[in-house]
Amino acid sequence: MVAPLSPEPTRDAVVLLSGGLDSMVVAGLAREQGYRLHALTIDYNQRHRIEIEAARAVAERLGAVRHVVLPLDLTQFGGSALTADIAVPKGGISASIPVTYVPARNLVFLSLCLAWAEALAARDLFIGVNALDYSGYPDCRPEFIAGFASLAMLATRAADEGEREPWRVHAPLQHLRKAEIALEAARLGLDPAWSWSCYDPQGPGLACGTCDSCRLRRAAMDETGVADATRYAA
Amino acid sequence: MVAPLSPEPTRDAVVLLSGGLDSMVVAGLAREQGYRLHALTIDYNQRHRIEIEAARAVAERLGAVRHVVLPLDLTQFGGSALTADIAVPKGGISASIPVTYVPARNLVFLSLCLAWAEALAARDLFIGVNALDYSGYPDCRPEFIAGFASLAMLATRAADEGEREPWRVHAPLQHLRKAEIALEAARLGLDPAWSWSCYDPQGPGLACGTCDSCRLRRAAMDETGVADATRYAA
Repeated sequence: MVAPLSPEPTRDAVVLLSGGLDSMVVAGLAREQGYRLHALTIDYNQRHRIEIEAARAVAERLGAVRHVVLPLDLTQFGGSALTADIAVPKGGISASIPVTYVPARNLVFLSLCLAWAEALAARDLFIGVNALDYSGYPDCRPEFIAGFASLAMLATRAADEGEREPWRVHAPLQHLRKAEIALEAARLGLDPAWSWSCYDPQGPGLACGTCDSCRLRRAAMDETGVADATRYAA
Repeated sequence: MVAPLSPEPTRDAVVLLSGGLDSMVVAGLAREQGYRLHALTIDYNQRHRIEIEAARAVAERLGAVRHVVLPLDLTQFGGSALTADIAVPKGGISASIPVTYVPARNLVFLSLCLAWAEALAARDLFIGVNALDYSGYPDCRPEFIAGFASLAMLATRAADEGEREPWRVHAPLQHLRKAEIALEAARLGLDPAWSWSCYDPQGPGLACGTCDSCRLRRAAMDETGVADATRYAA
């Protein structure tokens, strides 16, 4: 059970909610910090669109004031194992940027969060990137997040507002290991099984167990002993 | 008549093609410089969706190797006279950012150009922003365009490529007056009537004549004598 909202939320934030473990924890942290959640999920026609159902469940459980699932068909561009007919690697995490990287995805998605936040007159965005136990995507790194926050000041009405509030791009998992993220889920009362990580679902509710995303998740649960009812094919 | 491609195009570029006069001229300039055109039009459910038909005509006339019209419903966020039920101003261009500004639009759209270009292994983007005779949108200013090009280096595989080629964000109209853009259209053999500028269409093929976009276009045609068969309601 998720605890009631406390403190009473007073500020609006837009939270990028993929439906994965990380974005669920970020949404939980934003809520804990007293933000009203405006959850944004992009239906980019990804291989693992099943994650969108997880996002719906998480948004509802966390009491999001609105959840937008926005279609944006990135298979028109392709260039990734998640958006084109390219196999998802199963052999373990590589040293270089893997083919599951989706070109400019976090820039596109954060830009959409910014668009919604500006329309809401909110100044806070939350994203679940992390740069320790991750797949090496460039757009998960701290320098990208910091650069985005700077560019947001030039890309919006903020450019004309002089001394007004800066944009705040919260990435509270940035320096956490995956195991620490699992422990945060447990602390916040968020069941990992509500979320979906697998890039290559093998059937309804059946994760592959061997893609990078499954490997990182399983290792974190094994290390911490946090319960996770996710079913794996291998 | 548009002259045949010369020189033979050898490089790929993604061109943001709204269907307006500026983006048509930018596409013509990119073609003249020897780029193969990959034209991207965002169907953001804008009030003046009629511009998308103009974009299709321009892409075909300029021989784009591919034209993607990508649905992305920004009315989910609103916050602009182009994406919500807010009246388009008709009284003349104001000193401050007008309500036709769409939150973070150029950041979202350039990010999508970047995504496509990265998937294509291209390094060149073209956008028709200008910052002289314009409506004062922050995301049309040179500092935003320069900032975007810098962030692109952190947002993509380029972050890991060391000394490799930078992203080039071409905004060749940036420092042109609208009248100079009209003359460029004429020089390139591009008929202004192929393009659509009006924010508040009054019927099929009928521009309002009094929104900022109509005012800027008409003044440029009047000043230069470039022929434009666009019909205006007022």
